Amino acid sequence: MNIYKNRIERVKKEMEKCGLGQLMLTDPVGIRYLTGLDVHPFERFWAFLVRTWSENIVFANQLFAIGDTGFETVTMTDSDDVARIVSPHIAPGRLGVDKTMQARFLLPLMEDCSDTQFILGTDCVDNVRAVKDEKEQELMRKASKINDDCMEDLIAFIHEGVTEEECASYLTDLYKSHGADGVSFNPIISFGANAADPHHSPDSTVLKDGDCIVMDIGCKKDGYCSDMTRTCFWKKADPKYVEIYETVRQANEVAEGIVREGVPLCEIDASARDHIAAAGYGQFFTHRLGHFIGIEEHEKGDVSSVNSEAAKAGMIFSIEPGVYLPNEFGVRIEDLVIVTEDGCEVLNKVDKNIRILGI
Amino acid sequence: MNIYKNRIERVKKEMEKCGLGQLMLTDPVGIRYLTGLDVHPFERFWAFLVRTWSENIVFANQLFAIGDTGFETVTMTDSDDVARIVSPHIAPGRLGVDKTMQARFLLPLMEDCSDTQFILGTDCVDNVRAVKDEKEQELMRKASKINDDCMEDLIAFIHEGVTEEECASYLTDLYKSHGADGVSFNPIISFGANAADPHHSPDSTVLKDGDCIVMDIGCKKDGYCSDMTRTCFWKKADPKYVEIYETVRQANEVAEGIVREGVPLCEIDASARDHIAAAGYGQFFTHRLGHFIGIEEHEKGDVSSVNSEAAKAGMIFSIEPGVYLPNEFGVRIEDLVIVTEDGCEVLNKVDKNIRILGI
Repeated sequence: MNIYKNRIERVKKEMEKCGLGQLMLTDPVGIRYLTGLDVHPFERFWAFLVRTWSENIVFANQLFAIGDTGFETVTMTDSDDVARIVSPHIAPGRLGVDKTMQARFLLPLMEDCSDTQFILGTDCVDNVRAVKDEKEQELMRKASKINDDCMEDLIAFIHEGVTEEECASYLTDLYKSHGADGVSFNPIISFGANAADPHHSPDSTVLKDGDCIVMDIGCKKDGYCSDMTRTCFWKKADPKYVEIYETVRQANEVAEGIVREGVPLCEIDASARDHIAAAGYGQFFTHRLGHFIGIEEHEKGDVSSVNSEAAKAGMIFSIEPGVYLPNEFGVRIEDLVIVTEDGCEVLNKVDKNIRILGI
Repeated sequence: MNIYKNRIERVKKEMEKCGLGQLMLTDPVGIRYLTGLDVHPFERFWAFLVRTWSENIVFANQLFAIGDTGFETVTMTDSDDVARIVSPHIAPGRLGVDKTMQARFLLPLMEDCSDTQFILGTDCVDNVRAVKDEKEQELMRKASKINDDCMEDLIAFIHEGVTEEECASYLTDLYKSHGADGVSFNPIISFGANAADPHHSPDSTVLKDGDCIVMDIGCKKDGYCSDMTRTCFWKKADPKYVEIYETVRQANEVAEGIVREGVPLCEIDASARDHIAAAGYGQFFTHRLGHFIGIEEHEKGDVSSVNSEAAKAGMIFSIEPGVYLPNEFGVRIEDLVIVTEDGCEVLNKVDKNIRILGI
């Protein structure tokens, strides 16, 4: 059975579990994962209808010029009313739709299919995507290896007078020369107080003595993403910041130490969160511990206090505790891990011991 | 009145026109346009509720660290149920939502607000965005000037043995050296038969004698987009292709010649389409004539057979007729135009006369 047929079969099993006979997918990434069809629809309608009781259907604008899809295919043009073309293919009863289906398609379709109950059904695909097969795991290792190498080169590049933007620009070149296909997200490079914003965009801030340097970076290679964060210091580090750094590093290691098949994801989150709270910084760890990752930098699934799902072998997610002191300072340390039966494989190898650069 | 207050007032007037008292916006670009708040929410909830009868509300995850928004602000964390937090702020009756609102937020909110009728309300923002003010027009001219310069440099770069990918990569460097902030979309560079797919991605195809060379490129500058297509030939051109080229060029010029305030957009589309059909290639012009553009490469509004809306002074859109012979050949010629009271201003100045390169 080919890779796509196998994935569709796994999705159908998930659909049966949650009582869905039909599932409309509009996310181009999810469709590519299940069919191999690679379309960038922009604002046009592009969908894959999975049906447990009949043939699956591809819906495409004829502008996509996709040729033979290997599936029953319904085409339309820019002048067509999408809902009018799609609705005859929807059966009464329950219809799953994916989480990113846009209101522009969803609301008219709901109006045209008044006997159909629309339900969020993405989990049927996302649960399959969350557990990576061997081939996917190998690609994730490859992307993280490049990311590790580039992180070391980036750390070596940091020098007196450098700006965040210069680091980000240098990193882009590094990824290119290391054979990556591009970034998996815009790199976060934050000096000093800028690091208090976990999602700071690199700007013209110049590195100062005593600054923390948060580098949250990732590349794509062969369709899969890497993502890692390291925090260093320039010239010197305030003892309070060193203490916070050590707390976050330990939180990262404590959490990685308990990952294994069967452990609820919320317990992994709690292990890091409790460690940081015990040191008195709980209120400054303002986000979940981790997110799933694979074809996309953020995939469905997170390591957070509200996700009681158990880890499964093959899942890949980030472990990224952080502490952010508003307008002052921030630190985050992040690795990707693959869950195994008896633990986890940490994909990132860049040293996590505190590093004070420029001395 | 500042720029954002003014824009919100214009949106409220549109809301009144279509009987909407409340409008929930989730598109980060639309929110930035109306508030100046620049958030990249990834998969988290980020919204702006415009109310004609009360204060407007910003909904934000506390992770965004946006500080004082200048609006009433409701914050949440990753552990919160979004619909439960948002629904108390929604009044019974009609609620407009924007076209890109995702099912993951929309369906739970619809369930929690059973007395509310959800309606596509994006037009209230998009109609405002479609008509660019003086400042925006100036920025659009600036982005297109850079695009013109880079197109000339790209054409000069084309040489024996070059691949599509090499052209695309060179273009990226050109944009950088010309001061652009990046591309507004992944460039389309298509040689020969690849050009039959209007959305072809540059690959390792090597240029051959007699190939057409379609270059559909655009950059961003100061938050605004450019977009232009030129088609050249390498070494020689088959007489049939020359005839098609001339037909498409004339279609582009005929359409640009009739643009002015008050002309229905479908008539502009028809002027180009009829010209191509008269030459016998109507079935090979497979897409609409143009799309609106501004902060985003594709904004709401198109120049197509189904849009009978009249052009307004200040609207900016593309005029891009094309002919695509499957597996064989393609040509497209595209400019951006600003509608004026008595005509239009064509933003792109790169010569449209047929160019056979390498001779």
